[in-house]
Amino acid sequence: MSLKDFSETVRPPIEQELKRVIGLVDDRHSQELRKMLAYHLGWEGEGAGEQARGKRIRPQIVLLGTSAAGKDWRDALQAAAAVELIHNFSLIHDDIEDQSDFRHGRKTVWALWGEAQAINAGDCMYSLAYRAILQSNNRPEYITRAVDMLSETCIALTEGQHLDMAYEKRDDLSLEAYWTMIGGKTASLLSCSAAIGATITGADEKIVATLKEFAWNLGLAFQVQDDWLGIWGDSALTGKSADSDLQSGKKSLPVLLGLQSSPEFRKKWIKRPFTNTEIADMAGLLKTAGIQIQLETETTRLTEKAKAALDRLDPENGAVSDLRVLADTLLKRKK
Amino acid sequence: MSLKDFSETVRPPIEQELKRVIGLVDDRHSQELRKMLAYHLGWEGEGAGEQARGKRIRPQIVLLGTSAAGKDWRDALQAAAAVELIHNFSLIHDDIEDQSDFRHGRKTVWALWGEAQAINAGDCMYSLAYRAILQSNNRPEYITRAVDMLSETCIALTEGQHLDMAYEKRDDLSLEAYWTMIGGKTASLLSCSAAIGATITGADEKIVATLKEFAWNLGLAFQVQDDWLGIWGDSALTGKSADSDLQSGKKSLPVLLGLQSSPEFRKKWIKRPFTNTEIADMAGLLKTAGIQIQLETETTRLTEKAKAALDRLDPENGAVSDLRVLADTLLKRKK
Repeated sequence: MSLKDFSETVRPPIEQELKRVIGLVDDRHSQELRKMLAYHLGWEGEGAGEQARGKRIRPQIVLLGTSAAGKDWRDALQAAAAVELIHNFSLIHDDIEDQSDFRHGRKTVWALWGEAQAINAGDCMYSLAYRAILQSNNRPEYITRAVDMLSETCIALTEGQHLDMAYEKRDDLSLEAYWTMIGGKTASLLSCSAAIGATITGADEKIVATLKEFAWNLGLAFQVQDDWLGIWGDSALTGKSADSDLQSGKKSLPVLLGLQSSPEFRKKWIKRPFTNTEIADMAGLLKTAGIQIQLETETTRLTEKAKAALDRLDPENGAVSDLRVLADTLLKRKK
Repeated sequence: MSLKDFSETVRPPIEQELKRVIGLVDDRHSQELRKMLAYHLGWEGEGAGEQARGKRIRPQIVLLGTSAAGKDWRDALQAAAAVELIHNFSLIHDDIEDQSDFRHGRKTVWALWGEAQAINAGDCMYSLAYRAILQSNNRPEYITRAVDMLSETCIALTEGQHLDMAYEKRDDLSLEAYWTMIGGKTASLLSCSAAIGATITGADEKIVATLKEFAWNLGLAFQVQDDWLGIWGDSALTGKSADSDLQSGKKSLPVLLGLQSSPEFRKKWIKRPFTNTEIADMAGLLKTAGIQIQLETETTRLTEKAKAALDRLDPENGAVSDLRVLADTLLKRKK
């Protein structure tokens, strides 16, 4: 089955499972808590619809990983829902932490219901993720391994988010700490996504380790590509200077490399906020210092490393090919 | 073993297990996240020490429940730590939601590190709770049941907290919704505490259900007693009007009953803020309406109901007697 066909096959049952889990919230005395979660997931409220739902990429990776391990993806639907709920709980809290008013063009949960209710709604969604995975019908020893993977991942997520916020106002983030940070913030949940479906269906541990390795490197590549787009992407360069990571002061990879290797960049960096022209100049400085190419090389290297791991899996398995296609798609994305 | 002896026996291993779990946080690049958690638990920072640690009552109930089920409490230490971490994660978030600056006489986590870092630190502690319980050495089918109980409890916690916040500015909370609210906010975690140790060590399901019933009623009694103290307790009545629930506008049981049965109370209730004299008058109105006695009757009834459940357990088991003593102690507390 092609990646597109697989995606079209699994999207409806993923959405159905998510709805079942959100339906576990007791709404006898207030419908509002369930409504906040349904709003965030793009089902209800202003602007609800396909576009508000995100791509549900992580639960699809869960099910692809399950199939790639030779198991039935239907047995991993609860795990897929759990991963998507973890992702979304972290978005609800991130939006408060970053004071972001909008997501997918809609007001964020805290912007609509206030910070206190949004913190609590995020906690509720997080709890539902565990409840979802525990309602899986697989063997208890597989479920405990999967839940352990989930909790380990969530600890890493908070470690990454902590570093990200702690270094917002500091310029001394080391490259080593950068990799730990994006490992925690991005690669850990992707890695968990690819491996948890195989884990909960009892796949061989070597296969689980391979899927983890694949998605860990893919996650790092994804984030480095994201950092590239934050400086040289269309919306970062075409006049919308607020969309440039150079304006926000984010400690992205090009900035860290620029601070280390270009004295001119370092000198100008402290003079934020920048005008649109200055943003373009700063991006140019990084390019001249060879950092744009350095990032492209790094993304390609990490993507190839990810795909190389897949060579250890069954070459006849269609889901393995789909994971390769997915890796290439992510590498080529322009936003 | 007397309750006091049991408590002195289990406090050090509980503290040790909590420290082991907090030690799982990766502090290669920042010691700050682990430090926030250690500060909140009363181990580090200004004012650290015994008094800052809370009574660790819930993990003790976990271990008493385990012993009362005829199992070895040493096999439930991870579950005990998990429950205490759940309790504390919810305190970190509650303090942000209520904008409380102090807890146990020390600044709260968000007051010291800001809301963003505190939300994230709470999420980290919550994740550690699941990690703790999954590192238990018991059989996987017992662990999955225990984790399921934990996630169900956490959903109830957020449902209770949601109702509490939603009704802060509304006076139409029904009595039925009140019991759901305090069930979620207080009784659910106590009920989980009493039952989870028995669950994770594989005790008979009837014993687990009995322990749940005991602690559910004890939790309701505890909250009704808390509501009593919020109106007629020493600090609520002796001039510190800010400590009275009448001042904060909290929808506690005496207030709900007063709004329903005393037209005079209802008329004056909307005129907050009150002077100290008015607070005393309002408390007097509730007493005259028979509400003070009504609460005392209710607390006694619920405590007796809790203790009656224990009659179904082994009468020779010392931990069962300890649970009875604990119930009476909570009923008689004055703060």
